[in-house]
Amino acid sequence: MLHLQSTTSQRWFDQVDQSLPEILIDHAHCEKKAAGTAMNLIFAYVDDIELCREMTLIVNEELEHFHMVIDLLDRRGIKFRRLKPSSYGRQLNDLVRTGEPERAVDRLLVAGLIEARSCERFSALADHVQDAELAEFYRSLFESEARHHTTYTRLAKHFASEEVVMQRLDELAAAEAEIIGHGEDLPRMHS
Amino acid sequence: MLHLQSTTSQRWFDQVDQSLPEILIDHAHCEKKAAGTAMNLIFAYVDDIELCREMTLIVNEELEHFHMVIDLLDRRGIKFRRLKPSSYGRQLNDLVRTGEPERAVDRLLVAGLIEARSCERFSALADHVQDAELAEFYRSLFESEARHHTTYTRLAKHFASEEVVMQRLDELAAAEAEIIGHGEDLPRMHS
Ligand SMILES: [Fe+2]
Ligand SMILES: [Fe+2]
Ligand SMILES: [Fe+2]
Ligand SMILES: [Fe+2]
Repeated sequence: MLHLQSTTSQRWFDQVDQSLPEILIDHAHCEKKAAGTAMNLIFAYVDDIELCREMTLIVNEELEHFHMVIDLLDRRGIKFRRLKPSSYGRQLNDLVRTGEPERAVDRLLVAGLIEARSCERFSALADHVQDAELAEFYRSLFESEARHHTTYTRLAKHFASEEVVMQRLDELAAAEAEIIGHGEDLPRMHS
Repeated sequence: MLHLQSTTSQRWFDQVDQSLPEILIDHAHCEKKAAGTAMNLIFAYVDDIELCREMTLIVNEELEHFHMVIDLLDRRGIKFRRLKPSSYGRQLNDLVRTGEPERAVDRLLVAGLIEARSCERFSALADHVQDAELAEFYRSLFESEARHHTTYTRLAKHFASEEVVMQRLDELAAAEAEIIGHGEDLPRMHS
């Protein structure tokens, strides 16, 4: 359902165990970026009213998640601050083709894959942490991020046939698995 | 309360009478841009949690307004489409100083002045048009745009003293009155 071609490895769980507060701060930034991505898609494809409606719902939900994470940090005495982002998003966005409609398809599928990976990591994190409040929080986010993935994949079909979209999704998902499998040293939600 | 230094002139009402559908389409784009501005401010000043909370409310409301205008166009059989924007927003944004905290003060005050002018024009439009549904619609938007103006002006005081902010607001409001007074030929919400 999430179209991912890998699951999270032990390497990331080790980062979680060593640097959970930093990963939680990064999570807040990821929610903000998810809202920004949906807003940018409204600007880019404003003629597509269904897309605008769906992106509006996603903007609202991601900003709500952003504030939920900020509140969680606050309750835990973790100071929210700017962080150097992981290169995951940039590496995926580098795969977006220029020229329409390919660009639209790729932007939507990449956004959807980031949602899918977040979803997979939230679930993994919920199972991994010993902390009941945190586990419950991550379980509560799972459903909406999975729904966002489905929405993005469906909207990509406004710009190309089902077959073309699913083939491209397969290619991008393979690239995504390689990027996340390689990982990086900074402890982040997508490191 | 709106800190504007002029009221809308007959020149704009003539544009309304000649090109109402185009002005309504432009209005939809203005609501989208207002949402985008608030989102950009979250990205720029993410450390300021109160600002982020207020901008989140504004993003949500502006996107709601965007869809309300889109629906109104739809009911009237006016096809929503891309439009060359008026130069009003760009001219105002050109006044934003570089370097913090001046930049933050100016971005917030400019955003607030655009809200104030929208507010003033919505009210003028509601009084001007013969169409009861349209008049009611524009009256219904008045209150939230006025509140947005107040919010932006208040948030500017996070970055400078009350006195400094009010003096800069006076300068920017004078520039705004000159820009809107000069106007432009394209019929737009801020022409
Ligand atoms: Fe989210
Ligand atoms: Fe999401
Ligand atoms: Fe609005
Ligand atoms: Fe507004």
